[in-house]
Amino acid sequence: MAIHRIPVGIVGAGPAGLLLGHLLQRAGIESITVDIRSEHHVIERVRAGVLEQTTVDLLRDVGLGGRLTNEGLRHEGLYLAFGGVRHRLDLADLTGGRAITVYGQNEIVRDLIEARRAAGDWILFDAEHVALTHLDTEQPRLQVRTADGEETFVCDYIAGCDGFHGISRASIPSSALRVYEQVHAYTWLGVLAQAAPASQELVYCLHDDGFALLSMRSTSITRLYLQCPPDERLDAWPDERIWRELRIRLQMRDGWVPNEGPILQKGLTGMRSFVIEPMCFGRLFLAGDAAHIVPPTGAKGLNLAVADVWRLARALDEHYRTGSDAALDAYSDAGLRRTWRAQRFSCWMTSLLHRPEGATDFDRRRQRADLEYLVHSRAAMTSLAENYVGFPLD
Amino acid sequence: MAIHRIPVGIVGAGPAGLLLGHLLQRAGIESITVDIRSEHHVIERVRAGVLEQTTVDLLRDVGLGGRLTNEGLRHEGLYLAFGGVRHRLDLADLTGGRAITVYGQNEIVRDLIEARRAAGDWILFDAEHVALTHLDTEQPRLQVRTADGEETFVCDYIAGCDGFHGISRASIPSSALRVYEQVHAYTWLGVLAQAAPASQELVYCLHDDGFALLSMRSTSITRLYLQCPPDERLDAWPDERIWRELRIRLQMRDGWVPNEGPILQKGLTGMRSFVIEPMCFGRLFLAGDAAHIVPPTGAKGLNLAVADVWRLARALDEHYRTGSDAALDAYSDAGLRRTWRAQRFSCWMTSLLHRPEGATDFDRRRQRADLEYLVHSRAAMTSLAENYVGFPLD
Repeated sequence: MAIHRIPVGIVGAGPAGLLLGHLLQRAGIESITVDIRSEHHVIERVRAGVLEQTTVDLLRDVGLGGRLTNEGLRHEGLYLAFGGVRHRLDLADLTGGRAITVYGQNEIVRDLIEARRAAGDWILFDAEHVALTHLDTEQPRLQVRTADGEETFVCDYIAGCDGFHGISRASIPSSALRVYEQVHAYTWLGVLAQAAPASQELVYCLHDDGFALLSMRSTSITRLYLQCPPDERLDAWPDERIWRELRIRLQMRDGWVPNEGPILQKGLTGMRSFVIEPMCFGRLFLAGDAAHIVPPTGAKGLNLAVADVWRLARALDEHYRTGSDAALDAYSDAGLRRTWRAQRFSCWMTSLLHRPEGATDFDRRRQRADLEYLVHSRAAMTSLAENYVGFPLD
Repeated sequence: MAIHRIPVGIVGAGPAGLLLGHLLQRAGIESITVDIRSEHHVIERVRAGVLEQTTVDLLRDVGLGGRLTNEGLRHEGLYLAFGGVRHRLDLADLTGGRAITVYGQNEIVRDLIEARRAAGDWILFDAEHVALTHLDTEQPRLQVRTADGEETFVCDYIAGCDGFHGISRASIPSSALRVYEQVHAYTWLGVLAQAAPASQELVYCLHDDGFALLSMRSTSITRLYLQCPPDERLDAWPDERIWRELRIRLQMRDGWVPNEGPILQKGLTGMRSFVIEPMCFGRLFLAGDAAHIVPPTGAKGLNLAVADVWRLARALDEHYRTGSDAALDAYSDAGLRRTWRAQRFSCWMTSLLHRPEGATDFDRRRQRADLEYLVHSRAAMTSLAENYVGFPLD
């Protein structure tokens, strides 16, 4: 069994863990990143794709702007559709020039792996087993079993970036955490289709049958979502049914309709809100989905993870540069403020645009009135826009 | 039995019916207003007291600004309180100078009765029975039985301004109406106290125990409300308990607390949302609570009634002046647009500030995050403010 001494151990090589390692490397702080998944898996995993202005600015600032600038699709607006009409919200106009960029999470992962490899960073994929111990001491340990044997990393700090189902949060005694949770009674059926997006900007739609969303991955790949009942099964949705339902929900009165093409991938996503307080235990700091899950409607999950690791990297940098733990001590509170703001927005946007099962006629008309008010009030549109493009890092 | 021919019959001598008669009289259109209640009852009935800028402007424009200007309390802001801290929203700053005015509904009723008496208008209080017939003909009839006998008014139009429990809506075949309804699981315990208001502006408060509101009727009378369970009984709330609970919910960290004094009146108000479509049947037009009820949190009920009768008076004036029924035909649709906008705002403000029974820890934190976001976002505050001070008449 090899024992290594390293300042920071990072659990999880998704976008949060990889970006944290990248930021630390730029600050001259050594780290090891471990993941039980394969490199292929994390690169190919299609997940979020809407980046806040704040996220784009940060990625560019830290040398990750190359492909993002060339291939990312900058959107200065989005559509809210209801009653067969699309209403455009001019995000840039409403927020003083801020916008979102569509660029897949897996593309960010690819860029990060390349950057970290180039910097000579240590990323350990395909771990058979990972365990965390001594978390409430000054020498927390990251124990990793690989095909080559056991390795123990004795760290100053460990960052848990291994998502909702990861071992980081599970390694904290439950008495040390307060859990806030809500399961939303919706599932998203998501498909990736080989078809040019029929809109250059996202179309969020509320139809009597439920929510639908047209998004995109590139100029030739459309990403589409349909609200389904919570217990939906994928085999209930053959491709013909998917397109039929997409046409029903997304066809507008002016004839606009999504372009169709071969379905490359489909899957179901449950919808959960989850927050733990605090976002740390001893010398373990959680970031991203390990600490909080938001429903996907507001496109906040990835952006929140980026803000977490930015804050954590800055706090660790302050610790190593100045010896002050003030920023580390403030990490959880600051992260929770941003998390709850994103959580409330995501819940609000979810309830605005989804049709609950058992909705009454009153609910439908009130929901319609919410949307009508929204698209006719500059103040209400600005409120949506400022949340959607993202608040500055703080 | 006396038979009279009169252009407009008005059922209900509350603020809606009285104002409609006043507006018609100014336009030279004769009307009769009937009510089964006594003059004393309608004048003494303590109800709403927050007037939108739009309502104040209208009342002034039609000669009702005298006492309103002298005795009404103009508020250019309000407070949202949570976590023991009051946050002021500067309504005037957020809306380009618009504000609300605190002036009791019963004061408006008093002013209206005086003005209509001065103009020689016909108001018939204490009717024993009122019935509407021939509504879908060109000569709808208002039949009234008084201590003196039966009177039949053969009208061109009838205005139903007799509130939620009145006979106007009940006279429409139910097959001709679509009803939208939601009962909110809250009751307001309202008290009128002989005490100088501790705040010059309204304080809307969310506490873990539930909603509380400090309002006022004058510089010496405080109006206070407490959220109670839906099935609450008044005898469960002796005065000591009321003050104890008000102190618990409204005491702020800086020591601010409502002033106490003898309780002059107390009562319970259920909370309901109700809308019918359309707001008319044949030649009967409904206005105010006869057509729609909103939960009281947004202070919209009276203001909505004023907007209804303004629109109806204008439409009747157009009919008699030009022979065009265009505005009468559009009355319901225009009224419903304003109604649903007020309904959604009232529901939103209710859910923002009330603690539902069975609220989870997640609900509490999310609700807190909604409030935190609101008081830190100019866009979100502007959205609340523009709804609260009221949209222009349209």
